[in-house]
Amino acid sequence: MEKISDILSKKCKVNLTAVAKTENIDVKTLISRINRGTVVITNNIKRKMKTPSAVGEGMSTKVNANIGTSTDCSSIEKEREKLAAVVAAKADAVMDLSCGGNLNKIRAMVIKESPIPVGTVPVYQAIVETSRRGLPVHKMDPETLFSALERHASDGVDFMTVHCGVTLSTVKRLRKHKRICGIVSRGGAFLAGWMLANNKENPLYQNFERVLEIAKKYNVTLSLGDGLRPGALADADDNAQLSELHILAGMVTAARKEGVSVIVEGPGHMQLDKIVPHVKLQKRLTHNAPYYLLGPLVTDIAPGYDHITAAIGGTVAAAAGADFICYVTPAEHLRLPDIQDVHNGIIAARIAGHAGDIAKGLKPAFEWDKKFSKARKNLDWATQERLAIDPRKVHEERSKSVPKDKEVCTMCGTFCAMREISKYGI
Amino acid sequence: MEKISDILSKKCKVNLTAVAKTENIDVKTLISRINRGTVVITNNIKRKMKTPSAVGEGMSTKVNANIGTSTDCSSIEKEREKLAAVVAAKADAVMDLSCGGNLNKIRAMVIKESPIPVGTVPVYQAIVETSRRGLPVHKMDPETLFSALERHASDGVDFMTVHCGVTLSTVKRLRKHKRICGIVSRGGAFLAGWMLANNKENPLYQNFERVLEIAKKYNVTLSLGDGLRPGALADADDNAQLSELHILAGMVTAARKEGVSVIVEGPGHMQLDKIVPHVKLQKRLTHNAPYYLLGPLVTDIAPGYDHITAAIGGTVAAAAGADFICYVTPAEHLRLPDIQDVHNGIIAARIAGHAGDIAKGLKPAFEWDKKFSKARKNLDWATQERLAIDPRKVHEERSKSVPKDKEVCTMCGTFCAMREISKYGI
Repeated sequence: MEKISDILSKKCKVNLTAVAKTENIDVKTLISRINRGTVVITNNIKRKMKTPSAVGEGMSTKVNANIGTSTDCSSIEKEREKLAAVVAAKADAVMDLSCGGNLNKIRAMVIKESPIPVGTVPVYQAIVETSRRGLPVHKMDPETLFSALERHASDGVDFMTVHCGVTLSTVKRLRKHKRICGIVSRGGAFLAGWMLANNKENPLYQNFERVLEIAKKYNVTLSLGDGLRPGALADADDNAQLSELHILAGMVTAARKEGVSVIVEGPGHMQLDKIVPHVKLQKRLTHNAPYYLLGPLVTDIAPGYDHITAAIGGTVAAAAGADFICYVTPAEHLRLPDIQDVHNGIIAARIAGHAGDIAKGLKPAFEWDKKFSKARKNLDWATQERLAIDPRKVHEERSKSVPKDKEVCTMCGTFCAMREISKYGI
Repeated sequence: MEKISDILSKKCKVNLTAVAKTENIDVKTLISRINRGTVVITNNIKRKMKTPSAVGEGMSTKVNANIGTSTDCSSIEKEREKLAAVVAAKADAVMDLSCGGNLNKIRAMVIKESPIPVGTVPVYQAIVETSRRGLPVHKMDPETLFSALERHASDGVDFMTVHCGVTLSTVKRLRKHKRICGIVSRGGAFLAGWMLANNKENPLYQNFERVLEIAKKYNVTLSLGDGLRPGALADADDNAQLSELHILAGMVTAARKEGVSVIVEGPGHMQLDKIVPHVKLQKRLTHNAPYYLLGPLVTDIAPGYDHITAAIGGTVAAAAGADFICYVTPAEHLRLPDIQDVHNGIIAARIAGHAGDIAKGLKPAFEWDKKFSKARKNLDWATQERLAIDPRKVHEERSKSVPKDKEVCTMCGTFCAMREISKYGI
């Protein structure tokens, strides 16, 4: 079987030496982790990217931004603008979750124009196509689902979320042991509905080897979806969530045997004190598969500010070993995000990843802060702006309130603590 | 010696039974904690408030908002508007940190109009007065400082930050063992400069009993300031910070002997993994004095987003036992906050406090989320709006993108996961 590192370097032309340098590790270590599956570089053999980033054990935490249309908002131009905002705000990956408009055309645009890895959720396409044929979604033909997978993979998608761990027995149990928020994953909910309506097993679970074949053919990374993640704090760590996790853990082993890269999603809404144990449990069960964070949102009551609730959970999870943060925007739970939401969501997620990286001891992360703080102490505003996580924001905010004395800021004005104490050699 | 609980209930007319009910504890437990000093209600004997809140052991986490003028922005009308924003966003306390304009007039306005406890930092007034006399600030007469303390206390201020733990020997050591960011506390920096220029001990340290006398006379709570808190991750937990903490711990014991309420400030910029040990250390050393959080900011590189970096640190600190969060606004490190910043800073801090409360097991906090999530599951938008941490925000954001189908939102449109799975009794 061809080694994944060879597929990446030979077929995808990924410069693993450059990746290792960025991550401040030895290239041999990187290659060994890639082949063990604890580090993943998502790269379809059909795509050539300049710098796809590495996700997993010992790597800096990466950030994904979701874009995509809905039945209410389906402009391809808006998606093009969002993609530009994603790249400008320095996300490491982008997912096109479109469910409105011309799905194939939008996906083609994203794949063509994105310089970073592109992910999708093919089950959405299968649901939308079924619905557009005038059928209720539970009438979806499993072949529609598999042809969506095949189509996305052959189009060049680098990673796909597949909700393979949602099973008929788990979903049936959910009817008895009720949750506050049922199922909040879109793919999870529609698949579960399909299973209950037809009293049939999840096709992605039952035919997992077919999923693996498609992934293998194009070197698509499978993102094993947490279709049963909790949508409320009260539902966290329950039977459904943990049952799914156990099933996904088995699939990690099966995928690795076939030379397919996998990452595993988790954990949804979850109160702060449960996060570290949960991340460690998931990492252990999945044999250190890269952990893709959806959430964790540390409270349910803050719609409009869920980039903050997710950044809190994300930092703690990243510090505990989670590897890849799916951003949450301020629009979450309220509406489709606009361009400003996309920007704010990415910056919040990058803050979480960076603060997590410092806590887990990554030296380049710590050095960035040190350099920045030296500029702050020197009242060197140009360097602060250049080194800040969002240079434009620093410029804009400072311009809103210009100090008379240019050396300081309008917070303390002439009574600047840092300038005062510098006079005394401190 | 009169018990603090008696001063509160008899002189300040605080309804301790109502406070205990709000905090979901027995009133006897509350009274015993108040008299031991592990819980504080900040209330000057000259002020009558409807609902001053309790801060400390087992209480829900409280939030303070800083307002105040600077030499660059000194409008009393803006401060009045900020105060209204503070109350509307439901902060539990407000500090007037004015250093520009008519300080006495601004403080009088805040004390008169604020329905919540008011705090100040009298050393600012002493610095400003010295400067206005045309003197360099290191020429400040210690009597100017004590008369500022006396004046603020007799004006009715409920709590005052006093940087009593900054000592000459610690500051001299700071010259040798250099930090990245020196001293970033305004009070700390100016006092340290004064001490070095005059080669004299900190008057607030040397005459701590005089500070206690003033506080006792008016039942002012002393907030023992962390004048040497780190302003950069690289400076955290260093000799200066820990020396000050040890000194402050001794002062807690001295204050309690005199029947003076104290809270202790900490810990500034601090990487995530250091927060829990630091909070536990501070709580232990200070015999469980209420912990007033300045920060912790988990990274230095995010100016423009420091309400987020502080919310991350604040949640973790609150969960570990810190009691009182001083908000950080998005304007921090860049300029004086405006009204929108004040609002955003309070909401971020309240999110941190609430998520911390859930993690430390406070039942009412958890029940709020449960109730909210039930409304979310029922697609009951009116109840979600009413129960959200910021109802107006929910209303505004949802209005920006109105779904065709009013039951759902424009994120998933007609493909709403929660509605779909409800059809199947989940």
